[in-house]
Amino acid sequence: MRIITVSREFGSGGRELGKRLADALGYDYYDREVLTAIAVKCDISEDYAEYMLTHDFSSGYAITMRNSFHTPELMHPATKIMRVQTDIIREIAKKGRDFVIVGRNADLLLSGYKPFNIFVTADIQSKLKRCRERAAEGENISDKDMLSNIKAIDKSRSKNRAMISDLPWGDRRAYHLIVNTSDMDLKALVSPVAAYAEAWFGNNT
Amino acid sequence: MRIITVSREFGSGGRELGKRLADALGYDYYDREVLTAIAVKCDISEDYAEYMLTHDFSSGYAITMRNSFHTPELMHPATKIMRVQTDIIREIAKKGRDFVIVGRNADLLLSGYKPFNIFVTADIQSKLKRCRERAAEGENISDKDMLSNIKAIDKSRSKNRAMISDLPWGDRRAYHLIVNTSDMDLKALVSPVAAYAEAWFGNNT
Repeated sequence: MRIITVSREFGSGGRELGKRLADALGYDYYDREVLTAIAVKCDISEDYAEYMLTHDFSSGYAITMRNSFHTPELMHPATKIMRVQTDIIREIAKKGRDFVIVGRNADLLLSGYKPFNIFVTADIQSKLKRCRERAAEGENISDKDMLSNIKAIDKSRSKNRAMISDLPWGDRRAYHLIVNTSDMDLKALVSPVAAYAEAWFGNNT
Repeated sequence: MRIITVSREFGSGGRELGKRLADALGYDYYDREVLTAIAVKCDISEDYAEYMLTHDFSSGYAITMRNSFHTPELMHPATKIMRVQTDIIREIAKKGRDFVIVGRNADLLLSGYKPFNIFVTADIQSKLKRCRERAAEGENISDKDMLSNIKAIDKSRSKNRAMISDLPWGDRRAYHLIVNTSDMDLKALVSPVAAYAEAWFGNNT
């Protein structure tokens, strides 16, 4: 089984690249599907699941821990949702089918399967441009607000990862390939990145 | 004109990858050739030139600066050699021929030409293995000594770069592609990396 994980900065086009890679290689593709499964399993909305998974509860969590040292049933809901997410991602891998998965620290959660791990980066101009193109019509966000959104999301991804890995988010040691999509047409990158992944699997499976 | 610069951790195989890329794409290739040209121009040995370019003289340099504030002719020899290196690298670019250049902060020195910038990394086990294979027969260096060599060389590359760039050496924002060669046969990577470079040039020239 071949697994490609795609970690990415917000606005770098990592999600689109991941989807296109899956299409080009004929792999399954997972992204929002994981949230949907969490929502069903926990009987919550996808948005709430996403909020709980990306928000930083570390200070609140510490208090909960202190107050409930002997009452583990009082686990913070974010922790519970994170555990469900881990289960769901591992269930996907147990299917034994090749797949691409975007985000969710899947590179760490699935490390036992030796996935090929990509990180996608871009300069801030390209990210702003991509976010603008993606914004809903009529949506009126200033560059300044969009920039602070991008920074906040990346900061939360970085913090999230720090909880489960000693290598910082986006650190070159943690990935097999880091792709910079600044000024790039993503479609042009799909074939070389797919070829790179296949060369890597050829050496590592 | 298309320029590919290869920055790399010591032992990551970046030099071999650069040479193979040049061969695959039919580009000129520069590495030691730059040192040879410096040696000729400054009437010094290549080894001395390399030592002066990689050694950290920053503390000595500060003293020189202080003592010679009004006597710029007392420029530190390392600074002079660095300037000659910059001239030589820019002369190469002025030829107008496609080329690959390894190391020497060429990505920064040639930024006006919009080169495609690769960084090559690897885990420490792979680097040790590669250095061992490359070591002269009969050479008897312990893993510990080799490890401290690798660390010292990378530290000097990192310091060297810090003198001329605000982005740290190996920082993902400074490169277009970061390739991790751990456990990889470099030959298998040449074709996808060459294809990636061509896709990038297709978007950026």
